[in-house]
Amino acid sequence: MKRIAIVGGGLTGPLLAAYLAKRDYEVTVFERNHDPRTTAPQRGKSINITLCTRGFAALERVGVASAVREICVPARGRYIHNADGSYELQPYGNDGEALYSVSRRALNRVLLDHASLSSRVTFRFDAKCVGFDLDAATMTFEDGRTGDRFHATADHVMAADGARSFLRRELQKRDRFNFAQFYSEHGNKELPIPAGSRAEWHKHKNALHIWPRGQYMLIAFPNLDGSFTSTLHLPLEGEVSFDSIHTERDLVKLFETSFPDAYAEMPNVVSDYFANPTIPMVTIRCAPWNHRDKVLLIGDAAHAIWPSYGQGANAGFEDCAILDECLEEQGGDWLAATRAYQERRKPDVEAVADLSEEHFREIRDKVGDPAFLLRKRVERKFNRMYPERYSSLYSLVAFTTTPYAEALRMNQAQNKLVDAVLSLPDIEARLDSSDVERYIHALMTS
Amino acid sequence: MKRIAIVGGGLTGPLLAAYLAKRDYEVTVFERNHDPRTTAPQRGKSINITLCTRGFAALERVGVASAVREICVPARGRYIHNADGSYELQPYGNDGEALYSVSRRALNRVLLDHASLSSRVTFRFDAKCVGFDLDAATMTFEDGRTGDRFHATADHVMAADGARSFLRRELQKRDRFNFAQFYSEHGNKELPIPAGSRAEWHKHKNALHIWPRGQYMLIAFPNLDGSFTSTLHLPLEGEVSFDSIHTERDLVKLFETSFPDAYAEMPNVVSDYFANPTIPMVTIRCAPWNHRDKVLLIGDAAHAIWPSYGQGANAGFEDCAILDECLEEQGGDWLAATRAYQERRKPDVEAVADLSEEHFREIRDKVGDPAFLLRKRVERKFNRMYPERYSSLYSLVAFTTTPYAEALRMNQAQNKLVDAVLSLPDIEARLDSSDVERYIHALMTS
Repeated sequence: MKRIAIVGGGLTGPLLAAYLAKRDYEVTVFERNHDPRTTAPQRGKSINITLCTRGFAALERVGVASAVREICVPARGRYIHNADGSYELQPYGNDGEALYSVSRRALNRVLLDHASLSSRVTFRFDAKCVGFDLDAATMTFEDGRTGDRFHATADHVMAADGARSFLRRELQKRDRFNFAQFYSEHGNKELPIPAGSRAEWHKHKNALHIWPRGQYMLIAFPNLDGSFTSTLHLPLEGEVSFDSIHTERDLVKLFETSFPDAYAEMPNVVSDYFANPTIPMVTIRCAPWNHRDKVLLIGDAAHAIWPSYGQGANAGFEDCAILDECLEEQGGDWLAATRAYQERRKPDVEAVADLSEEHFREIRDKVGDPAFLLRKRVERKFNRMYPERYSSLYSLVAFTTTPYAEALRMNQAQNKLVDAVLSLPDIEARLDSSDVERYIHALMTS
Repeated sequence: MKRIAIVGGGLTGPLLAAYLAKRDYEVTVFERNHDPRTTAPQRGKSINITLCTRGFAALERVGVASAVREICVPARGRYIHNADGSYELQPYGNDGEALYSVSRRALNRVLLDHASLSSRVTFRFDAKCVGFDLDAATMTFEDGRTGDRFHATADHVMAADGARSFLRRELQKRDRFNFAQFYSEHGNKELPIPAGSRAEWHKHKNALHIWPRGQYMLIAFPNLDGSFTSTLHLPLEGEVSFDSIHTERDLVKLFETSFPDAYAEMPNVVSDYFANPTIPMVTIRCAPWNHRDKVLLIGDAAHAIWPSYGQGANAGFEDCAILDECLEEQGGDWLAATRAYQERRKPDVEAVADLSEEHFREIRDKVGDPAFLLRKRVERKFNRMYPERYSSLYSLVAFTTTPYAEALRMNQAQNKLVDAVLSLPDIEARLDSSDVERYIHALMTS
């Protein structure tokens, strides 16, 4: 029986363990942190995760989707908190489509419990990878409690050790490893909003709350206990930025001015702000993901993306399902399967990386832009007239399992149709006229 | 007096030392290798360098240009060895413009000698940087002869340690360091062509000899002693590739078939091929180049490029001159100067990186492409009619000090004019007609 080592016991690692155990591999998962099922949470260390259709599809195939769904809160739209104090609820779809908000830690625990059900999966916590011989597939770990070092080998090593992957750094030292890391000018910081408020907006639990303010924003995800977890997105430097907030007064002024309705529900925002870390956003792109049949990068280690589209965990889960399909198709030939996997998967993760960078600019900057809003109106018009044949890019990404690259291609073709409609004279006033509807009909049937 | 440490004593390092010593800094250059002035050369470790106008302009400002010119061989054009056995000499310009071919090692020695003339410059060879504390600007070195470790500090550290920069790797571990490395699918290998041949082509010493063969090529640079240094460019994998050449017979077959006139002058090609390393080509892009006023990346460490345009050393030398200008403008305020330097220099090195990737495809693939050759004919037509106002991109890059990004912009504007001419009916036959000349005149005067 082949032995597989998975380095990283976060989200992708445990799901991958479950997938590989089903294929009769003997799997050991090494995780640098403590077992989260037996220890208390660290403060401000993670934002909430949103799961969507493609993430659940991958969870479903190893039978853990329903257990995950139990710890999620569905969000059926965006609740926009405008700068003028007005609100706007934007549903994600016409059929109750929802994103599922879940705490990263709770999700981690469910996935660990699920993988532990298999006798072929072993977990080794407090094991930090500090050395890796690529050709021999030999890893050196340091025990986080004792400081002792120990070695491990495997037939195949899976690097599921996240955006700052240690194993990827070893690959990078070799020739011909293409690699790019791209940071946003923005960072983010987690700030809790407790349960029990009577504010009107706070009652809208089944929505993502967004306070778009041009160069910065606040976004809040609902939790099971009635609280929200908010994330403050600010430029790292500049006039309104993490760098410019030095004192409690600076912070209070920002919240009073920009997010007064949120601020009223955040009694500990000052201490939370100064206690919690500022987290950068980074896109990681690299190739190849493998070194022979010895190591394969997967999840964020292979393709970290900005969190703006909520696709990080979903993409990692989808990786597991697609690798599983490739192993099936290649009859268990590991090297052939990992090559097929990369060929199939690379264009999709490139696409979702691009989409995530673009979407961040969109939700931050463009929500108040009239040209952008008109474009969205035209898109909705297409979708209402041709619900089966015209889906928005967002719907394709979040509410289908259409491969990311295919979604991007479909959107590029659709954009040309939208451009054609937008170029009609006086379109803003005439969008719902029968003339324009006939024009759209002609476009869609030509 | 401020103390500056330069890590890397290759090409950019010694020139930078001369520039900074003129500004009264106390400079120590640390180089991991032996002093090349006292040791024998390593085999197959470097290809020839080509210097051009902008490189010499930077050498001139510290008074080392004439010493360098003495060890160069001017190449006034490309001598193309076509696959059908015919030859074609393509002059670089109408005024005797030349590239200057020089051995990397000889150039290194001249630059070291020149920097050593200043009492403010100290060299420390056999000093490999193995540790770097960014905030304290403290470096740890290992002595290559004794294995002993020692520390050094400086007010400012300059990382001139090349494409595989150790110091850059330390910067990369921090947040917000954007970084990309991009490898060609091709590698190259140095193969000498001795002096003393009577072959007709071998007498053309003042040219770069190129054997373009679509997916691969051979290129030969003239040396002072009458020999040439050739470089074989092959895909790393595939039908004709470094990977597919297993035996002496494989190699001989390639040379007999593709480069017979070169092969006739390369008596040791088999042993050279199997003894010399295959060198990959990598583009490095990153930002920011500094960490506060503690460290600044320069030369290949900041922006390695493919060697195809022959701009690597020239760009590194130009870095030194531009940093010097920024220090002058900022009155010696180091941090302000390094920021001004990056703002000014970054677009240029991005442009030359793009140009080098594109030019590699051009010289390898397109030389035999009729559409490409027609385009070049049209460009030469413009240049002949308007020599003062229309320079080819190649001329702007190699034979002027026009900033790279500006050269690229000028070329993009010019490309539109060339496109307009190419779109005329029957242009191939009518290019020299008075109609077309009037059309070009109208384009250039509108």
